[in-house]
Amino acid sequence: MNISRLKKRLSGDHDFKGHTILGSMCTEPHKMAVKTYKRFLSTNVGDPGLFPKLIQLETEYIASLGRLLSNDSAVGSVVSGGSEANILALWSARNRSEKGKREVIISETCHFSFDKAADLLGLQLIKIPVGNDYKIRVDLVEKAITDKSLAIVGIAGTTGLGVCDPIEELSKIAVKNNLYLHVDAAFGGFVFPFIDNSPKFDFSLDGVMSITVDPHKMGRAVIQSGCIIYRNREIAESINIDVTYLSGGRAKNRSVLGTRSGASIAASWMVYNYLGYKGYKKNIDRSMKLTYWFIDEIKKIDGLGVKVQPESNIVGLCASKGLDIKEILFKIRERGWAVSEWPDYIRITFMPHVTKRSLKKFLVDLRSIVQSLHGNS
Amino acid sequence: MNISRLKKRLSGDHDFKGHTILGSMCTEPHKMAVKTYKRFLSTNVGDPGLFPKLIQLETEYIASLGRLLSNDSAVGSVVSGGSEANILALWSARNRSEKGKREVIISETCHFSFDKAADLLGLQLIKIPVGNDYKIRVDLVEKAITDKSLAIVGIAGTTGLGVCDPIEELSKIAVKNNLYLHVDAAFGGFVFPFIDNSPKFDFSLDGVMSITVDPHKMGRAVIQSGCIIYRNREIAESINIDVTYLSGGRAKNRSVLGTRSGASIAASWMVYNYLGYKGYKKNIDRSMKLTYWFIDEIKKIDGLGVKVQPESNIVGLCASKGLDIKEILFKIRERGWAVSEWPDYIRITFMPHVTKRSLKKFLVDLRSIVQSLHGNS
Repeated sequence: MNISRLKKRLSGDHDFKGHTILGSMCTEPHKMAVKTYKRFLSTNVGDPGLFPKLIQLETEYIASLGRLLSNDSAVGSVVSGGSEANILALWSARNRSEKGKREVIISETCHFSFDKAADLLGLQLIKIPVGNDYKIRVDLVEKAITDKSLAIVGIAGTTGLGVCDPIEELSKIAVKNNLYLHVDAAFGGFVFPFIDNSPKFDFSLDGVMSITVDPHKMGRAVIQSGCIIYRNREIAESINIDVTYLSGGRAKNRSVLGTRSGASIAASWMVYNYLGYKGYKKNIDRSMKLTYWFIDEIKKIDGLGVKVQPESNIVGLCASKGLDIKEILFKIRERGWAVSEWPDYIRITFMPHVTKRSLKKFLVDLRSIVQSLHGNS
Repeated sequence: MNISRLKKRLSGDHDFKGHTILGSMCTEPHKMAVKTYKRFLSTNVGDPGLFPKLIQLETEYIASLGRLLSNDSAVGSVVSGGSEANILALWSARNRSEKGKREVIISETCHFSFDKAADLLGLQLIKIPVGNDYKIRVDLVEKAITDKSLAIVGIAGTTGLGVCDPIEELSKIAVKNNLYLHVDAAFGGFVFPFIDNSPKFDFSLDGVMSITVDPHKMGRAVIQSGCIIYRNREIAESINIDVTYLSGGRAKNRSVLGTRSGASIAASWMVYNYLGYKGYKKNIDRSMKLTYWFIDEIKKIDGLGVKVQPESNIVGLCASKGLDIKEILFKIRERGWAVSEWPDYIRITFMPHVTKRSLKKFLVDLRSIVQSLHGNS
């Protein structure tokens, strides 16, 4: 067996470098991230004594993200992705709470990793409806608080529509009621800090205890790279497990994973330092420009519209005038486009690998499908 | 910033390619694994509809490992490592059990991922002492069973000494008492099948419901690559979460992670098919030969010995005649060797990256340390 034969065997799968993936939050990593990842492929910071300088790099990277998120004393880890980070956050919240507190107040639009975390950790998600803006209804959050409440979760960049929950108000409620506030900014963490006048969602808000940020989404790092960032050391250390036997010496482990890739750290650090604030801003600007251009094009198609004015580079494409969005989804997928299915809309994500050229082709297909559906009705 | 500068900054960290890491269960991955991993770096099987052929490859790989472990109908996943796999196993066991069953019977020598799993899942580990052979005492396992018992865990290749619990007897007890038996073969899964007359630990034993096997240890794949292999589909599906919104279509998710590396699958598959049974056997033979050679050399050093006759390529180095093993550990680490610390022994792992040449240098240092300690006493 060799790689050419394997490549042949796997040909036909989608590819971020191709023009077909329009509905993923992952993307082709930045070339500097790829180069760096390759170089540190075999490193394992699960045995941190072997790689003390890589651990230093992780501390530095987390501190940089902490500063980006208005917190000079942030502590955390580069983990495997948003799911692990969200589990870690609720795990910390649970382990720090009084016994019996088991309810987590969260938007009905939350990522499925929270259902997972709740099942794993024996917690109950109290799912709150969203308003017309598709953000959690703050009035209902307040009403949902009981003496079993453990935490509130706010989402900065919802999985479906990329909007930001009113974290500022959630923070006030959390402080008032002495609840742990976790912010899932897996997507938005590398978006909102680079968009002018975007909503507040970070540690500048007193209630925010931890934030999930995924470098492997808009951070342009390599799968698997997620970050959990805690307000302070004490919160981070609430789930420490002492590991005494490592070949590099004793260590504190506080990830779900044991063996942990050092390549993820090095690559995330590299692309962050290579691009810098300006580079990320340029990337997001490009994505937002594409987003707005796409919406304008959609408005020209009779019977199509968008679910909500986007706050980030995600658009919910919906149908009107008797058109069935599921039928459009089915037909557009048939033509080879990988878009994301939601109950009453199609999600398009304007990730770095998405080009205007591929969107134009997509629009040609979309127009022709809509036309034929109009003809049928 | 560029990679040369980063490499310089990180120089001084240990490296599997170097000669200093003698106490890790990770290793330098096989060159075919590295090549393949690089090629599929950006693939995400967390969105399986995008990469259906990669998912096919995963199914095929898990089936191959299933056959290696005496089970033609095995089902499972390539996950991030042994910790995730062990958590998944206990999660399945818990979700399939009657309410109230919360006790897991396990050896006191278990990997720390079980403490993690127990804390996460709200389970209680009933830790059973080991006998003179450093294997779980089966008589005490039977005595520990209560109406709260949920599962038994057997270890095939203990973290400390690489020995195999009496899984055959544990299986009989599990069947008799209708308990879930999970086998943690994170290390041994890629060792024992290639050693003649090694103990039975796999699905040929009726009680075994799931097995953890780590390709990134003796499987020579790339970090992060672990496998959870279930006896049948029904067990695997007991922790399914329905994910409806993916850009490649609907999916069942049953890993802790959401975004999941396709590169791990491709690389693990490649090295397995490239080496084949013979290739792995040759690798293990080489490691076992080094292991026995090393023990012979140790026996020549006055005041040193081994904890137990090894069943795999792991040796517990201990001291006698008034020598203090901690002092030896301290001094040998001072000389740059990364060995693993245990209460009354030093663990040496004879991984593929460990060479006779480096072991000879290590023995020179060891002899000189022991000599100076004898001189002091």
